[in-house]
Amino acid sequence: MIGCLNHVAIAVPDLTRGIAFYRDILGATVSGVQPLPEHGVSVAFVLLDNSRIELVTPLGEASPLADFLLRQPTGGLHHVCYEVDDLDAALVQLVERGIRILGDGRPKTGAHGLPVVFLHPKDCGGTLIEIEERARPAAEV
Amino acid sequence: MIGCLNHVAIAVPDLTRGIAFYRDILGATVSGVQPLPEHGVSVAFVLLDNSRIELVTPLGEASPLADFLLRQPTGGLHHVCYEVDDLDAALVQLVERGIRILGDGRPKTGAHGLPVVFLHPKDCGGTLIEIEERARPAAEV
Repeated sequence: MIGCLNHVAIAVPDLTRGIAFYRDILGATVSGVQPLPEHGVSVAFVLLDNSRIELVTPLGEASPLADFLLRQPTGGLHHVCYEVDDLDAALVQLVERGIRILGDGRPKTGAHGLPVVFLHPKDCGGTLIEIEERARPAAEV
Repeated sequence: MIGCLNHVAIAVPDLTRGIAFYRDILGATVSGVQPLPEHGVSVAFVLLDNSRIELVTPLGEASPLADFLLRQPTGGLHHVCYEVDDLDAALVQLVERGIRILGDGRPKTGAHGLPVVFLHPKDCGGTLIEIEERARPAAEV
């Protein structure tokens, strides 16, 4: 079912400092900041040769990251995102296998404009897992 | 400096259950179990199309994972590992930039038989980061 590791998300209390660490200390290329008010976060992507790190920080009053940063004020590893070919088909299989989907159980549009869901960490060994539908080249659509 | 995301490590209290989750629920290919007594852990790798997940569980009495699993008994995201071309050169740069190296500061041999170090999470925004020297094809050596 899962194919590529789309990204690893790292929560940061200060996005400017997080970007500076990856750019100036680890020497990576980092994208510009992308505010996602509908998700209550701002993100920037560290572009690695085979995948990406999503640096993510709260945006607005009711951010889903607020609790995480209260527990871990320095920030840290937040979730991993795996790609699937067909999100609707994957959801049917995951629910049949006893995995709970967070929220109303229906896909939302993620940071890359593609459908995503989050799986319940208690059903996934304590790891918050995002599942994203793989981007398809125009020739495949 | 950093190139590929070599792996994301997920600590699990029970490696058999961790392997079953990735194989049977998420439909991924998982390698056999590899005991690493010199590191106090056993590992298995979830083979993704572009990277790997390292499932890691304590081995022996004095495992470096014991404290993590006491704090988070379900398991969860533990560290990320980035590749560099030349670990010795990277270490000089990292230390110059104020990053502390865990242990005695010298590379050890990691799960893939290559030199690795771990960086101090307090210098890396709360994330435990492993740096591994990139495997070189025979033609490059």
